[in-house]
Order: sequence, then structure tokens, then C-alpha cells
Amino acid sequence: MTDAATTSPGAGAALERRARELDAADPLGGLLDRFVDRDHDEGVLAYLDGNSLGRPTRATAARVERFVREEWGGRLIRGWYEGWMDWPLELGDRLGRVCLGAAAGQVVVADSTTVMLYKLARAGIAARPGRREIVTDVNDFPTDRYVLEGIADERGLDLRFLETTLDGGVTVEQVASMVGPQTALVALSHVNYRSAAIADAAAITRLAHDAGALVLWDLSHSAGVLAAELDAWGADLAVGCTYKYLDAGPGSPAFGYVRAEHQAALRQPVQGWLGRRDPFTMGPGYEPAEGMLRFISGTPPILSMVPLAAALDVIEEAGMAAIRAKSVALCEYAIEIVDALLAPHGVTVVSPRDAARRGSHVTLRHERFRELLDPLWEAGVLLDYREPDCLRIGLSPLTTTFAEVHRGLAAVAGLLAT
Amino acid sequence: MTDAATTSPGAGAALERRARELDAADPLGGLLDRFVDRDHDEGVLAYLDGNSLGRPTRATAARVERFVREEWGGRLIRGWYEGWMDWPLELGDRLGRVCLGAAAGQVVVADSTTVMLYKLARAGIAARPGRREIVTDVNDFPTDRYVLEGIADERGLDLRFLETTLDGGVTVEQVASMVGPQTALVALSHVNYRSAAIADAAAITRLAHDAGALVLWDLSHSAGVLAAELDAWGADLAVGCTYKYLDAGPGSPAFGYVRAEHQAALRQPVQGWLGRRDPFTMGPGYEPAEGMLRFISGTPPILSMVPLAAALDVIEEAGMAAIRAKSVALCEYAIEIVDALLAPHGVTVVSPRDAARRGSHVTLRHERFRELLDPLWEAGVLLDYREPDCLRIGLSPLTTTFAEVHRGLAAVAGLLAT
Repeated sequence: MTDAATTSPGAGAALERRARELDAADPLGGLLDRFVDRDHDEGVLAYLDGNSLGRPTRATAARVERFVREEWGGRLIRGWYEGWMDWPLELGDRLGRVCLGAAAGQVVVADSTTVMLYKLARAGIAARPGRREIVTDVNDFPTDRYVLEGIADERGLDLRFLETTLDGGVTVEQVASMVGPQTALVALSHVNYRSAAIADAAAITRLAHDAGALVLWDLSHSAGVLAAELDAWGADLAVGCTYKYLDAGPGSPAFGYVRAEHQAALRQPVQGWLGRRDPFTMGPGYEPAEGMLRFISGTPPILSMVPLAAALDVIEEAGMAAIRAKSVALCEYAIEIVDALLAPHGVTVVSPRDAARRGSHVTLRHERFRELLDPLWEAGVLLDYREPDCLRIGLSPLTTTFAEVHRGLAAVAGLLAT
Repeated sequence: MTDAATTSPGAGAALERRARELDAADPLGGLLDRFVDRDHDEGVLAYLDGNSLGRPTRATAARVERFVREEWGGRLIRGWYEGWMDWPLELGDRLGRVCLGAAAGQVVVADSTTVMLYKLARAGIAARPGRREIVTDVNDFPTDRYVLEGIADERGLDLRFLETTLDGGVTVEQVASMVGPQTALVALSHVNYRSAAIADAAAITRLAHDAGALVLWDLSHSAGVLAAELDAWGADLAVGCTYKYLDAGPGSPAFGYVRAEHQAALRQPVQGWLGRRDPFTMGPGYEPAEGMLRFISGTPPILSMVPLAAALDVIEEAGMAAIRAKSVALCEYAIEIVDALLAPHGVTVVSPRDAARRGSHVTLRHERFRELLDPLWEAGVLLDYREPDCLRIGLSPLTTTFAEVHRGLAAVAGLLAT
């Protein structure tokens, strides 16, 4: 440790006091006790990984128990005809209205994000026959890159990567330089999983449309924390994950969006019975159902939709504007601590410093972060390490406190000082 | 009602007495209270639809609640590293050992049955390049037919249907007459969803192998009630559903089996991050993981695996031999009632009368069954109608009582007499 890396005890104490003040003034603070009691999360000093797995609401614990006993156990097969069959579209509509800027009839909850991405990317590509290219981001989330690589292989297409940087996001200029008359599909993330950079979805969508391509947005790292405007952007397709900021539990189902005007023309490749017109006639030959139903394949995962519905209650009550405001405040506060306590040790901020260009996590870089990961977890500071040498500070506005951010980052500073 | 359709009150009373005796002597009777209390299933006179949706165990209700509070809420992201990541293969191994006749390392729990079928059928077909045909059963379950139709379309293959009859099953002779040097994949159900006919899986697998084809078995209507012998049959691929006799809840995940010797050569098309070698390096380019992991695509649906684990506890305790014995006894008793009370009204038995050729449901046929469905449901007799004019009496050995079979079929007889 050098002298330059020393910060005055006064700075640390002031930051800690600020955390208490910010928590006391937090308009969403009253919703913290809507989530499972922190007494259960033994040994957790700071949970800074809500962008990987959100916390459960208290209502979820009670509702899944009641669902098993009263709905599944009590209604038995009748449940399908008394409502379950409508859950994928009803929950989809609600998600669309509360979080995604999507009018009713365009969102479905089903499958895993990977499978939904496969289905919708295949559907989009098939709608642009003759075009030979898929465009994505070399720094996009792995499953997106792998799924598109597989599709490109099987359809004999070229997968072209935008050469973004670790700390940047996809820019409009990069996309403009790559889309053209051969582009079938542009598939990108709204918020980058590592840097948290926000893509200019409206401008990129327009550009891609000017070239005659369709656009698929992956909202996994924005859904529930940064309002999307799918209809307003003119987005064609979107997918996303519900176990991060949407607090729906480990491996909860994905959502998929298909713009209303495209639905009749698009077909997805996994032709299951519940995506068929009149499924219960069980007749010969597959004919896709009307509307979003055709993007369903198998039997909807009902039990795992219960937590999503419970979390949406809290998200809707809070409102996306207040959630975004607290997300920005948490990130700004985190960066303030980094500048005061971690920068002296050589830590740099990978994420954009401009809040308008940043999602709800702050990624930091330091050559010692890999070796610090285990000691941090042992100290109860739960966050993700990402290659090459990054720590992601995930800030989930409904459940993360400013005090928690302070505790977590102070622990990082403490380890760097040893 | 004609005189011929009248049965003596004495016959009915004797059958009812037999139900009481059979229930009293049922070696699995002691396990009935391991399932959610029947007091919750308001208005149910007879649940004869456990082949569509099994009942929940009591343990399930408690375990999902505890899972949310203590595991998800308490361990948070740590849960993935403390066990969840292994659940798909661990539960798969257990399912393989208890129900499927599959040695460890060949079964995974993931996706919906439809998606798993798509993935494994695609993988199997890709392993037989140059062959142009897929063989299935014209009376197979709809999702199987639709998925294969979609695959045939996209891969430019011919989907050939075995012309089975409503009341028959797939015969070895039918398969022999259709498989040949062009057959890439034979995809069939072990137990037919409508007739309950059991296919001779070992003989059909041998035949297909003699022709150089791979075989995919859909075990949805046998898993948990009739032991499969995947390894002994020489099966290449299998899929199945866990919400029927495996009591894992509405829309619970599927399972997939890939014979160990094929795993290294087979690739499935939905290339997600969790099927990749070293997924957390998040590196460029997809390279499939070793073994069954490569058949996983997205994040495993953890919460919805909790009920499956709880149900397997009871199934394992009962043992598949005892379950099959009670299944046969229930079906025999049902047919006895049909012969005594329903046949006089013109009801015929579609399912095989030979227990060795029949799964765990009994399908009946009568021209008035469509109009009887609503009154039966209103009377609390829950069973499925299947085109053209069939009622399925689904008998789930761990939860169906002989008294329930009697009540349900007596209600059918009563309605036919009006």
C-alpha cells in the first residue's frame, strides 16, 4: 500500500453517514420489508448481485405454498380452464405495461431466455429470406452470442460482430457501419451485462429498419430496473429474463415480445401443441394460433410464474420512474465511494459515468480482483467477477440499501489495502 | 334407456363393496396421506385425470415455501454454487435410476417436453446425415407430431406416419414395414396418450437399429407408472413429462435421455451458455460441454424442480413394481365396472384388455361422451375427453383409490341411464 492509496478516516465516516441519510430519505425504503427478511440471508454483509438473482418477495413464499395446496392440489386439472392457460399472456401483458412499454397482446412468458431467444431469432431471420447476415455485439452476453452462432451455422448465415470495447457500449455509428442489404437481423442487448452501457435502442432500431433488417432486443439486464419502450422504439422482437431485477427466482421463465404487426407473418421453429390453433382438438397438422400464442411451444410453467406475479405487484406499486431514480442514486453513490476509497488503490470504473448511459450496475476493474473474489464472498460481500478482471456491483433498487453499498465497497477497499 | 342397459342394483353394490376391500388391502394405501389433503379439492367426487396433472405431495407445499425463504432468499446467488447447478443432472440421475432404467449420466431435467423433444430430435437427425425420413405414429400425441412436422419442414425431410388405429398401438410389424435405409429417426411414444397401448420398445428399437436409424422414445405417459428400461432397450434418445405420474406440477420441466455412447457425437441446436464447456469464462465461440450438460440450454428452472424431488421421494419409497401392480389392479377393476355397468349402455373399451399391453389409463368410447363431459365435471368427476368420442380414465396409483374409480364410473353409468 502506498501513501497515495490512503484515504482519511474522515472521508469514510462521511460516506457512511451519507448512506444512513440516503436510506432514511429513500422513497422506496418502505418497500424493503416486502421482501424476504434479511435475517434469513445468513452471513450476507452486502448483496450486490441482484442483477444476477433478485431477492424473493415475502408474498412469494406464502403464495407458492398456497398455490400448491389450494390451486394445484385443490383445483387439480380444472386450474387449466380456470385461468392457468391465460397466465402466459396475462402476465406478459402486465410485464409489457409496467416495464416494457408494450401494449397488450405482444408479450408472452414462457421457456428459458435462451430458448425464447432461439425461437424469436429464428422467426425473425425466416422473415428476411435471402439476406445472409446476423449482426450482434462481440461483448454481448454469452448465451446471445452462442445461440446466434448456432443459428448462423444451421441456416448457413454469417454472424457479424460489432467490435465494441469492454468499457463501451454499442454505438449508433458502429451499427450504421455494419448493417446493410444483407442484414436479416440485428440482435443486441439493451443494457450490456458487463459494462452496463445502455444502447440507443430507438436510433439503432431505426437504422436497422432503414436497411430492411429486423431488430431483436435482449432486455435481460434492463427489465424491471430501466423502463423499455419497445412500442415507441419500433422494436420488432425482444426477449428477457425474469430472475434478475424482476425477482422471479432461480431459472424462472423468460418473456418474449413480438410486435403486433409482425405476428401473423412470423413462425417460430418449436411447433408445440400449445402454440397451435385449437390445441385441444389435437388434430393433424400444425397451424399456428393467432397472435402471441403461436410463440408458445410446450405447457406453460405455471408454478414458476407465481413469484413473477408477486414481484410485479411490488414493482407496479413502486413504479418504474421511482425505481429508475433510486437505481441512478445507488449507482452515483457507489461511484462516489469508488472515487473516494477505491480509486486510490488503482480501481477504475468500467461503466459509463453518465447516468443516462448506464443501467443498474457499476463495473469496476483492478488487476487483483480475481484474487479478491473469494475473500469478499467469505466476508459476505456477494457480487460477480467478470473476465478479464472486473467486479460487478449490482444494484437492485427495491432491495439494495445505500448502507449495503457502503459496506460492500468499504470491504473491497479494506482488502485492497492489505 | 332400454331394458338391456339395466344392471341389477346387486351388481353395483357388489362392485362398491369390492372397492372398499381393494382399498383396505392396498399395500400403497398408506402413502395416500403423503399427498395434499383431499379436503382441499373441493367438489371432487373422483379424480381420474392424474395422467394429465398429478396431485402434489404434502411435502411439496412445505418445501417450495421453505425453498423460497431459506434457499433462494437465504443463500441468494450462493445457491448456484452450493448445489442448484447440479440439480438438472442429479435429479436426472435419480429419475433414471428409479423410473427409467437409465444408468447415471444420461438424463437431464430441463425445458418443456416440447422443447426437449425438438432439441433431441434435431440432435438425432443430425447424426444421420443423408437420410431423408422421420418415422412416427399418426396417433401419437399432438406435440410430438407437430414438432416432428416442423423439423421435417425445416430440414427438408419426409415425415412418415405409421397408420395405427385408434384402439391399437404401434406394432413391430408396422415399424418393420416402414423403416429402411432412408430412416434417420424413429420417434414414438412408449404408451399411447389415448389408447394406453404399450409399444414393444425393445423390439422396435432393435428393428430401427438394424435399419441404421436412431430411436427417440417419448415416455410422457409411462414415466412414473410403468418402468422404462432405456438402457436395456438400447434406446438412443428419450424425453418425457414430469407433471403427469411424476406429480411435479402444472408445466413442470421435462427430462431428456441421451445414451452415453452417443453423447460426444450429438449436438443440439439451442446453444445456450449453460450447455457450453466452462460457461463462466463467458468466452468467444460455443463448444459443447462434456456429457449430458451439452443438452442444457438456458438457466435451469430450479423452483419447479422442488416438487419433482418431493414426488420422487414417495415414488422411490413405493417402488416402481408396487406402483405398476396397483396400476394394473386399478385398470382391471375399472374395466370390470365398465363391463358390468357401462357396456350395457353401449360403452366400449378402446384400451387393450391385456394388462401387459396397457399403460395406466383406460379409454372408453361412446357416442354420447362429448355431451356427458360437462355434466361429469359438474358432478366432480374429473377426466379427459379425447376426440373422436372417448373418455380417458386416468389411474394414478399413488393417489387414486378404488372407491374413486367406482364413484366416477358409477356417475358415468348414471348419466348414460338418463
